[in-house]
Amino acid sequence: MKRNVLIIGAGGVAQVVAHKCAQNNDVLGDIHIASRTSAKCDAIIDSIREKSSLKTDGVLAAHALDAMDSAAVAQLIRDTGVQIVINVGSPFVNMTVLEACIETGTAYMDTAIHEDPTKICETPPWYGNYEWQRRDRCAKTGTTAILGIGFDPGVVNAYAKLAIDDYLDEVTSIDIVDINAGSHGRWFSTNFDPEINFREFTGTVYSWQNGNWQTNTMFEVGKTWDLPVVGQQKAYMTGHDEVHSLATNYPQADVRFWMGFGDHYINVFTVLKNLGLLSEQPVKTAEGLEVIPLKVVKAVLPDPSSLAPDYTGKTCIGDLVKGTKDGKPTEVFVYNIADHKDAYNEVGSQGISYTAGVPPVAAAMLIANGTWDTGTMVNVEELDPKPFLTLLDQIGLPTRVKDANGDRPWNA
Amino acid sequence: MKRNVLIIGAGGVAQVVAHKCAQNNDVLGDIHIASRTSAKCDAIIDSIREKSSLKTDGVLAAHALDAMDSAAVAQLIRDTGVQIVINVGSPFVNMTVLEACIETGTAYMDTAIHEDPTKICETPPWYGNYEWQRRDRCAKTGTTAILGIGFDPGVVNAYAKLAIDDYLDEVTSIDIVDINAGSHGRWFSTNFDPEINFREFTGTVYSWQNGNWQTNTMFEVGKTWDLPVVGQQKAYMTGHDEVHSLATNYPQADVRFWMGFGDHYINVFTVLKNLGLLSEQPVKTAEGLEVIPLKVVKAVLPDPSSLAPDYTGKTCIGDLVKGTKDGKPTEVFVYNIADHKDAYNEVGSQGISYTAGVPPVAAAMLIANGTWDTGTMVNVEELDPKPFLTLLDQIGLPTRVKDANGDRPWNA
Repeated sequence: MKRNVLIIGAGGVAQVVAHKCAQNNDVLGDIHIASRTSAKCDAIIDSIREKSSLKTDGVLAAHALDAMDSAAVAQLIRDTGVQIVINVGSPFVNMTVLEACIETGTAYMDTAIHEDPTKICETPPWYGNYEWQRRDRCAKTGTTAILGIGFDPGVVNAYAKLAIDDYLDEVTSIDIVDINAGSHGRWFSTNFDPEINFREFTGTVYSWQNGNWQTNTMFEVGKTWDLPVVGQQKAYMTGHDEVHSLATNYPQADVRFWMGFGDHYINVFTVLKNLGLLSEQPVKTAEGLEVIPLKVVKAVLPDPSSLAPDYTGKTCIGDLVKGTKDGKPTEVFVYNIADHKDAYNEVGSQGISYTAGVPPVAAAMLIANGTWDTGTMVNVEELDPKPFLTLLDQIGLPTRVKDANGDRPWNA
Repeated sequence: MKRNVLIIGAGGVAQVVAHKCAQNNDVLGDIHIASRTSAKCDAIIDSIREKSSLKTDGVLAAHALDAMDSAAVAQLIRDTGVQIVINVGSPFVNMTVLEACIETGTAYMDTAIHEDPTKICETPPWYGNYEWQRRDRCAKTGTTAILGIGFDPGVVNAYAKLAIDDYLDEVTSIDIVDINAGSHGRWFSTNFDPEINFREFTGTVYSWQNGNWQTNTMFEVGKTWDLPVVGQQKAYMTGHDEVHSLATNYPQADVRFWMGFGDHYINVFTVLKNLGLLSEQPVKTAEGLEVIPLKVVKAVLPDPSSLAPDYTGKTCIGDLVKGTKDGKPTEVFVYNIADHKDAYNEVGSQGISYTAGVPPVAAAMLIANGTWDTGTMVNVEELDPKPFLTLLDQIGLPTRVKDANGDRPWNA
């Protein structure tokens, strides 16, 4: 049994995490929010109070924290007495926060793989570069660390595990498909920090196929999917965290990640990239001013947090898992549909933040009640998915399956 | 009789002007080239020496000059003893250079309308905002000032005058069409200074129709033209300098300007414009740096002068002038075809620079021999076009006409 949560970060996802923790503070206990700018934490707390999201009276506090400073993180853990850390800060801080959790024996969670700000797209499997090098120390100290527990990675890893265990005898492929069929009503905007968003697509696309790492470039491999609710959608093979753990746990299967992009996004991205406007290297204007083009692009684009009030439409994220059952080829699509407007009405964030922020709270509740308090480092597909998906059904992200027997709730 | 020329500017057009002045220095006398960076003037001089362009031995000198400083321009005019200034610097310096010419009684020419760097697209007629306000002072001081004597504006104004005087009794419309059917082989580039190029298309498109100024947006009105040599080409109604003087001199005619654009150019332009990257207003990056987006776009794009060696294909620029002759509807297309490769071989610049840079040299020769030494301020359609077109035939930009009687040299 663990209680009291420290949320690290104060962006759109942190806003969702905080609201959901508040809605379940009878289970989770005290809620602390820490980021470099404590005013951003205060704004989240104001929003929780405004929506009366706290289930029971309890601690709700903001802290200024430099999460790159491991000792400062450990000190805040000790000062607040938290036993669970949900790290939804920048992926650059993952390892300093994890180290503080190992040092203090606190349960750790994050939603994205660690990144070194100076490197784009490291060697696969990505988890091997930082996270898994600390697995033995987690086991030795009994530290629970759940890696990548957002939606993708996170829920989609649980979907893969569910499909493989319950619907197949043997797995041959896992295709994760992430479609945002919503509309923000702007001519163009990224859904999160443009600098981080564009960074994701300027490197090599890794996939696991035929027992080997395959490399492609972004937008090189596209495929039109016909999906529930959102219909026909074009998606492109993209490098993504969960490909790296699923390929390690299911090396016999092809593992690919597909992200939906409209032609408009691709066109804008292509123009900016080909002109050199996505470069992180400074250029000099005719007047002699040194400027990083990507930072100017970020400056002219809409602030992603400004999109939520006007966002409409739905997301569809799921796993198409193929293999054999009773000797016959079988496939199942395990998925969730989320609605941008519903998310905004409930927690003041759009759907992209909502799908990423709800799952770590479900995981925190499973750590709190002991179900997922593993005392070691795991990726999500190494855990029992059923209590997790059951909880997600209850707190806003219901799971459905579609196969030869129809389209229905997963546990119908 | 005037002699000795000061060229202001050291870009691609200045390179052409300098070469052409050198080829005709028996008429023009000393040649001085001045720009903010005298090394750029030196490079032009090196290129003239390399191609042995000087017709006779003579002065060929580089100068560092801030052309925004009218007193400095006047001083350089006095120091060098020049009587003719060909201003092919940035359009931001036109008025300071013109003032220096008025002060010293030196003949003045430019190839584009004056621009205030902080304003885009002023009220029509554009010449009324700056140039024509100085017409009386030119007349009073006997200062020859020929406005807009590149190709367009410039040669196309002479084409209009020729067509109206020699081919029609009454004029009803003047459509100027500028097609660059060449290829520079880059993913994207503007053909001259990107800042000036994009500025031309971000404002209101003014045309003169039915005796009034009409307004449209860029790329709103497109039309496919079937032209000599370059064939079928899509062009869009664009605001342009010569519309403003021709509409004043021929208010009875519709006056429109059409510029050819490929879909690729339009796409890149549209993305940059809609994102706000063509703005001349500063934005602030997350790090607090104030930057003008358009200047960053300029910094990442190819230097237009670097395109020349690889440029292939032809330009077609001309006037379709309609009206009546002997009571019957009549039309004539007066035009020039230029070749990018030929231009590069002759003067080391591409065709766009060539067509802009040769005409002011022809005009300088006509000022030198007294033919066009007006002693006042004029737009090109107010001058006799014939000696000008005759000279252009000889120095690289031959004129042709196409009408019901066929397609032939204008003076055949």
